[in-house]
This record gives sequence, C-alpha cells and structure tokens, in this order.
Amino acid sequence: MAQYVYGKNVVKRLLEDNSKVYEIYMSSDDESIIKLVKKQNIKIIKTDRKRLDKLSQNNNHQGIIAKIDEYKTVDLKEIVNSVPKDEYGLIVVLDEIEDPHNLGAILRSVDCVGAHGVVIKKSNAAPLTPTVAKVSMGAINTVKVSSVTNISMTLKALKEMGYWVVGTDISNAQDYRSLKYDTNIALVIGNEGRGISTLVKKQCDFMVKLPMKGKISSLNASVATGILLYEIYNKRFPLGE
Amino acid sequence: MAQYVYGKNVVKRLLEDNSKVYEIYMSSDDESIIKLVKKQNIKIIKTDRKRLDKLSQNNNHQGIIAKIDEYKTVDLKEIVNSVPKDEYGLIVVLDEIEDPHNLGAILRSVDCVGAHGVVIKKSNAAPLTPTVAKVSMGAINTVKVSSVTNISMTLKALKEMGYWVVGTDISNAQDYRSLKYDTNIALVIGNEGRGISTLVKKQCDFMVKLPMKGKISSLNASVATGILLYEIYNKRFPLGE
Repeated sequence: MAQYVYGKNVVKRLLEDNSKVYEIYMSSDDESIIKLVKKQNIKIIKTDRKRLDKLSQNNNHQGIIAKIDEYKTVDLKEIVNSVPKDEYGLIVVLDEIEDPHNLGAILRSVDCVGAHGVVIKKSNAAPLTPTVAKVSMGAINTVKVSSVTNISMTLKALKEMGYWVVGTDISNAQDYRSLKYDTNIALVIGNEGRGISTLVKKQCDFMVKLPMKGKISSLNASVATGILLYEIYNKRFPLGE
Repeated sequence: MAQYVYGKNVVKRLLEDNSKVYEIYMSSDDESIIKLVKKQNIKIIKTDRKRLDKLSQNNNHQGIIAKIDEYKTVDLKEIVNSVPKDEYGLIVVLDEIEDPHNLGAILRSVDCVGAHGVVIKKSNAAPLTPTVAKVSMGAINTVKVSSVTNISMTLKALKEMGYWVVGTDISNAQDYRSLKYDTNIALVIGNEGRGISTLVKKQCDFMVKLPMKGKISSLNASVATGILLYEIYNKRFPLGE
C-alpha cells in the first residue's frame, strides 16, 4: 500500500535521505526540490492545488506531495487500550518532528523505556519511512504509532481518556524533575526549530524544561525526549523499590 | 589547514553525508567506496599501505584515507585545566563513535549540560566535519575537543589526574542511577555497534547501564549519552538545593 506525505521540508528530507519515493505531485515551482527530484529520476506530476488538497485530504501541503510506501499505524484508542491495568500510560506526542533520524531515535527510546506508543502528525512531519525504520533499529515494528490530522484535537481526546498533557519548552516552564509523573502522561515534543505550536501549547497541563548550563539553549529533539522518558521511568520505577 | 581521517566506515559516512572531501588515498579496491567517490567527482590517489601508514601516522587506516578541512582541537590537559575549582570535572570520552550525527548531537548535549570537554579517537571514529558542526548547532565551537590516538592510554592519563572512569554497557553493569558521581568523571561511550572495546573496558572503574524494558536492547548512542549526562547533572545539582 502507498501513502501520500506532504509539506516542503518533509518531502525535501525524504529526497535528501534517498528514501523510496514513487511520484511527486507539485503545484509549485520550488527549484531546490525539482533539482533533488530530477537527480533521483523520480516522476514529477504537475497538478493544481485542488488535486493536491484531495490527495492529501488537507490544504496544508505547501504545493507538494510525495507517494511513498506505507508502514502500519494504529488508532489512538489501540495505544490507550494497550496500557496494562497496573501501569500508568505514557504516550509520546510529536508536534511536527521533521527529521527522520529524530523520529527513528525517538521510536527506539520509546521501545527501550517501555512507553506505550507515539502519535505523529500527518502533515508537515516526518512520516514512517525506510530511513526511520533503519534508525529505529526495528522499533518501527514494536512501537504502536498513530498518525493524526490534528495534534491539539488528539490531546483533547487523550485528556478525556484520563491523560495529563506535559509539554516541553526552553523557557516559561518548570524543571522537568519537579513533577511526579504518577498519572497517565502524554509527553508532547515540539518541532526541531519552532518548538510546540501555540495551539498545542494551550492543551498542555504542565510545561517542563531541561536545565541549560551552556551557550546553546536546546538539546537535539530525540536526546531531549530520551532524557524526559527516562526521568518519567525513574519516577515511576525508582531504584531499589 | 587540512587533516587526514581514515577507516572504511568513517570515510564512507563522510561521502554519504556529502561532506567536503578534497582527496581520497586508497590502497584497497573497495567497490562500494569507489562508487561513492566517483559519484562526487573526488580525486582518488591510488597508493600503497606504507604511504597510508605515513599520512595517517597510524597503521589502522584499513586502506583508505580522506583529506578534509580541520576543526580546532585542544590538548587533553587544556580540558582538565578548564574545570572550575569549585566543580567536579566531567569529560565525555568517545570510543569510536562513527556517526557524525551522533558526534554532533553529543557535542550539543555536552554544551547544554555544562560538561567540560570531549575526547575523540583519531582512527575509526567520526572526525570534526561540517556535518558534525551543523548537527552540533555550533557546539563544535564552544566545546573543547581533544583528538587522541589511544583511548585507553588517555583514560590512564585522566586517572592520574584524579578522574574516575565510568563506562557504559548493556549488560554486566550496575544501574546508572546507583552512582553518586561526586568526583571527577570520565564518561566513556562505546561504538554504535560494538560498544566499548575490551582494552578500554579494562580501564573502567565502574560500568553502568540504562534499564531496558522493551524488545530493543540499546538506545541510540547520543540519546544514551544525553540521559547519562543529565543524571550526573542531577546528582551534582539536585533540584531545590
């Protein structure tokens, strides 16, 4: 089965990563993308915005769609229902993570720490690709992933199912070690450059940050996710108990 | 100034990453590398092992050397001397990390957590390249990096300067949270596939591991490094003190 993924940065990363792309549908004339596409002998289908809206079931495609292989995803409910009764749920929600290396490393960490699933966004975010599969060391097949249209609606749904939403930021947030995490948690990780979007931030019950002592103000997104996941693990399963 | 880096995997990653490579010196006929080199129109200089030994000042080059731009490195002593008198030292020692994305992300984490420097190996390890610089978000310029020939000799030297050596493994190790880290620490991170080499392991005073609950037995190297660095930070600067 094939899937359609969209957004300029996302398609560009697919091409730069030499991921298998069957066709590119474009309404724009972005030269940097056309150059990449031609280099790999991929068929370009010139079309109008209306057809792109229909293919992507969305109007957020920025004039470009790529047809790629599909990896298995599940309904959000399947993730929530998979949480054992004697455990708090832990779901990682990615608000437009674009780099397939980050997505792959995050899936790997989610498997390692025993979290219950990952939510990714359908548009403007790295989709499940062979590169992601490779970087994930196989976690793409062991971790339940739900692909959704709207992150803030998804967080609302999770709240209704008893989840607390913890967002991450580099300022206006409390130290990540100050929470107990003794409840069902949806941990929201923002885009590599922009962080969490304003609408999604509104759904967060808590905002946490990592202490920064150096000249650079933020960690790589997959590294930050790993640190937060292991802190939650540490609070839930403290050493010697 | 130019530098010579060597080892099959390291040079292959440089080429795959489209890093600026001026020339390739080869004594072997590795077709997969020759294909990559030709694709990028880089000059191949066929030569014998003796010349490669001389260029690399080493006999561990696996028949291939690449000439690339040089980034600034420092003496190990400069890292040790940079530690403020009221702090314990924290130095990350990389035993053949090959992936430039991992090296870049580790430099970034080292800056963020306020650690004092990084040791990398001259052979069979990712060197400082433009890709590393990009991934590091500039930490390549803020973090002191020492490039050494022999990791286990370097650890011996660090021990003589009052450091304790903490290695990481996936088994035969204690939970990473069980140490106090209230001394000068050299944190050793092993190769992405092979882990820490046997000789280097012999220099470790402690071996630590991260709890693994999933089906995959190890984290991405840069994610694991970030988690360990923030645990050491947490022990040294606990919340609310």
